[in-house]
Amino acid sequence: MNLSSFKDIVKNYKVVFFDSYGVLRNYKGIFAGVKEMFEYLDSQGIVSFLLTNDASRGPKELAAQFQEHGISSLTDDKIISSGMLAREYIQRKITGGTIVYLGTENSANYIKMNGVKTISIHDVDLDQNDDYQLLVLLDDEGYDWNRDLSKTVNLLRRYTMPIIVANCDTTYPLSKDKVAIATGGVANMLEPLVQKVFIRFGKPDSQMFSFAFNHIQQFGTINKHEILMVGDTLQTDILGGNKFGIDTCLVLSGNTLAKNVDVAITASGIIPNHLCESVIS
Amino acid sequence: MNLSSFKDIVKNYKVVFFDSYGVLRNYKGIFAGVKEMFEYLDSQGIVSFLLTNDASRGPKELAAQFQEHGISSLTDDKIISSGMLAREYIQRKITGGTIVYLGTENSANYIKMNGVKTISIHDVDLDQNDDYQLLVLLDDEGYDWNRDLSKTVNLLRRYTMPIIVANCDTTYPLSKDKVAIATGGVANMLEPLVQKVFIRFGKPDSQMFSFAFNHIQQFGTINKHEILMVGDTLQTDILGGNKFGIDTCLVLSGNTLAKNVDVAITASGIIPNHLCESVIS
Amino acid sequence: MNLSSFKDIVKNYKVVFFDSYGVLRNYKGIFAGVKEMFEYLDSQGIVSFLLTNDASRGPKELAAQFQEHGISSLTDDKIISSGMLAREYIQRKITGGTIVYLGTENSANYIKMNGVKTISIHDVDLDQNDDYQLLVLLDDEGYDWNRDLSKTVNLLRRYTMPIIVANCDTTYPLSKDKVAIATGGVANMLEPLVQKVFIRFGKPDSQMFSFAFNHIQQFGTINKHEILMVGDTLQTDILGGNKFGIDTCLVLSGNTLAKNVDVAITASGIIPNHLCESVIS
Amino acid sequence: MNLSSFKDIVKNYKVVFFDSYGVLRNYKGIFAGVKEMFEYLDSQGIVSFLLTNDASRGPKELAAQFQEHGISSLTDDKIISSGMLAREYIQRKITGGTIVYLGTENSANYIKMNGVKTISIHDVDLDQNDDYQLLVLLDDEGYDWNRDLSKTVNLLRRYTMPIIVANCDTTYPLSKDKVAIATGGVANMLEPLVQKVFIRFGKPDSQMFSFAFNHIQQFGTINKHEILMVGDTLQTDILGGNKFGIDTCLVLSGNTLAKNVDVAITASGIIPNHLCESVIS
Repeated sequence: MNLSSFKDIVKNYKVVFFDSYGVLRNYKGIFAGVKEMFEYLDSQGIVSFLLTNDASRGPKELAAQFQEHGISSLTDDKIISSGMLAREYIQRKITGGTIVYLGTENSANYIKMNGVKTISIHDVDLDQNDDYQLLVLLDDEGYDWNRDLSKTVNLLRRYTMPIIVANCDTTYPLSKDKVAIATGGVANMLEPLVQKVFIRFGKPDSQMFSFAFNHIQQFGTINKHEILMVGDTLQTDILGGNKFGIDTCLVLSGNTLAKNVDVAITASGIIPNHLCESVIS
Repeated sequence: MNLSSFKDIVKNYKVVFFDSYGVLRNYKGIFAGVKEMFEYLDSQGIVSFLLTNDASRGPKELAAQFQEHGISSLTDDKIISSGMLAREYIQRKITGGTIVYLGTENSANYIKMNGVKTISIHDVDLDQNDDYQLLVLLDDEGYDWNRDLSKTVNLLRRYTMPIIVANCDTTYPLSKDKVAIATGGVANMLEPLVQKVFIRFGKPDSQMFSFAFNHIQQFGTINKHEILMVGDTLQTDILGGNKFGIDTCLVLSGNTLAKNVDVAITASGIIPNHLCESVIS
Repeated sequence: MNLSSFKDIVKNYKVVFFDSYGVLRNYKGIFAGVKEMFEYLDSQGIVSFLLTNDASRGPKELAAQFQEHGISSLTDDKIISSGMLAREYIQRKITGGTIVYLGTENSANYIKMNGVKTISIHDVDLDQNDDYQLLVLLDDEGYDWNRDLSKTVNLLRRYTMPIIVANCDTTYPLSKDKVAIATGGVANMLEPLVQKVFIRFGKPDSQMFSFAFNHIQQFGTINKHEILMVGDTLQTDILGGNKFGIDTCLVLSGNTLAKNVDVAITASGIIPNHLCESVIS
Repeated sequence: MNLSSFKDIVKNYKVVFFDSYGVLRNYKGIFAGVKEMFEYLDSQGIVSFLLTNDASRGPKELAAQFQEHGISSLTDDKIISSGMLAREYIQRKITGGTIVYLGTENSANYIKMNGVKTISIHDVDLDQNDDYQLLVLLDDEGYDWNRDLSKTVNLLRRYTMPIIVANCDTTYPLSKDKVAIATGGVANMLEPLVQKVFIRFGKPDSQMFSFAFNHIQQFGTINKHEILMVGDTLQTDILGGNKFGIDTCLVLSGNTLAKNVDVAITASGIIPNHLCESVIS
């Protein structure tokens, strides 16, 4: 596929969904030029949203990172995270009892609701039934894997409850050449051990895109052909956008390298509508 | 879980999504009492829709089967099939070239569009490039598996194109104790052989529910808590409904038997909101 | 990895296990120079065996193909096929009743035994119980996939019997750029549909190597470090040989291309002891 | 299937392969009557072996547990563990450099060899290349999962080496109703994250049975039909024995419960030759 200039591509859309890591930033911080790119979009009346697989914090915290860098258009109402889908599920489905979570205390704040107790797997006492209504995997931190993953298996063998995974990414970047295992990787380990069906939220699942599509209608009526999904990963951003029926743009500033992009597209059969070096091209 | 009367359950909702096989009918035909059940729903102002994994014919043909039995409320605008999602995908994504399909000529009628050629895998000549834009699996009939499944593998090794599966069910019932392999089973065979990502439409995927949710808004504004999904299969109907955030009712007139239901729920971790013997209970 | 001359490598071993396709031959026939290579091995007192995933014919027929080309050292007692493992299994485990097979009549000849009936899936009458003792997948030809694969599913839903797969290769080459779906591909389709455990014979499974290792002891006591496995496929020949604890040599005349070999080894983590352009290098 | 007396079954064989957990012992210790059962086998000239998926200690330590309870026939030369296969692999394949292990220091003792360095993943410094030749998963203890599993992923992304799993069990029992995640569960989590092929040792893989079969020949020539595999798990003990072509006996004192056994056999298609309540029946 041929490379295009991102500016040339984006001007044909009214709304842009941006993935975060590898598109707007990396482990070191926001890319140079991203602030100016958002100013250009604002000047053209193109509305930007962030679509991110993240359940470790709420939209306010996610937005704060961008506002610190002077990117004023990504306010918290422009952030759509997989954690928000998990939160909506919990609000619709759980009305009492106890939710067990794997994650930090901070990640649990966002799923707290009146009348529902939350407890970390770390603090669960298996021998004391506590009206368990749900297990939710929020974050890879905040519990002792050696001890608490086996405890999770035993909890799910003893009690029947739905299990939801609020971020299905399996790894996240720590530095140029180091990754850490993410919540989705933990979920993939536990699922065959307990032989239950885990409900996963986040890209490439179409529910993420459907949630975003409904969310943006508050900013004016938008049709699918007016939206562009911009991402660095074929298997999540581009596959999800393609399946949902919106146009997709692959950028080469993250997971997919310029030297591999043609092979990656051919090998996977996942074909973006557009290809750009980066969002500042 | 305790059994409830379907009438007692359904009266608390404004909209009902019905699965077809095992809920309203089986291989012999429509269940006795189903006509009267729909008349009851009509009298209560409850609007009914059919949500079915089927891409072998269009909504008009699917509706005709019910109208023949005097069920007048399931008109073609009340039918939502996985084939409709495939059609919408094609309309949004394909604007020219050739679509290759696995299925009968009849199944292909529904995906035909101006300016796009369709050809059965049966008639494809591998040595003649034909600007292939898409492969779509519509039906398990209409081609010679011995010859044309290998041909499909070779087509996908030679040309890069998206592959969509318009019905992800793996089997369908032929009689009381016989099944046939369905399109989803064929897709599961081909996918590892070509090592490409197949895009699947149909329950339990949330896009089916999202499509339905948007579709029904033309009949009046409906919220998620006003909808009941009724199905006989935990892994498709109930899982999909649960994930999408609507209430679910499992009926014991099809795939899930009364004697196994408690074990099935515990083993899978998929928990319906309600349990009924059948829709005429 | 650096390329070596096959002659330099092979002289350090007493026994060589050869894969067939991509090593000694391709779809067009035996490679030029293979006859002379075998004559060299004979002259050095190195004993050659063929290790092949094939259950479509017996060792006599497999040997005949080589003898026609003047390769006299690959006599039928030097042929070890996955079909022979299936045959041994049947001889040990089945003493009466009926064996159902998927394959040609010719493929079934080799598994016939006194006192045991064999019937093609094509001829099975599902409504007539016939003391079924085993289902065996022998070949991809000899039955109507459209009709008989669904019949196989129904047979296995109705009767409990072990299921064995006598060749786990998923495709085989038809020409330079065409493949056909092989028995292993058919097995991978059926297994999830019937949710039974299929018993697979053939490389990379260590039973194939163990069978071969025991078989060759009749030609003199051989230790593992005296054997070289030569193959063109990392995932079967090299992985299987490595796991069994014998030395392995990857040749670049078949499935693995010279330009991809370093990436293929790094990506898979399957590391051969030696790398040669071909067996005539 | 009908229950038989173990004494009636076993007297027809010359050699018995016993699984350990659920057959001879549970989390509380050796079952009452097992000592007398072994004395009966000794008196009949039937030779017993232990076949166990364990790589956390060597055969001497495994044998000691039985000898403490007065079971004198299970000497260390009668113990066959998956760790022994891993050790044999390492001895055949690794002649220098460094082996990285996941496990306790004690588990690593058994794989130590002259001229080869061993280092726990806990102590690996990713930024210092150390001529890594192999990664081996020995035990679920001895390292910090939160930190060291991500470190393992990064190690395998940076360096190419074979990866072996010396025990493919995914859980082990801690008490009547608690399990812990075992090495095989850790391996199943890591494998998709690094997309390399892990080499697994242990039941049901036939290499375990092949290794045992060769090992026992030092006690006299034994044919396959003279061996009985006794286990409590269809998917490992019985499947592995069946595939290897030896007779199998399922006991109901462990993983498979009497009330479920018929369903378990039908559902899996794994059929033992004999069924006994326990080894003391």
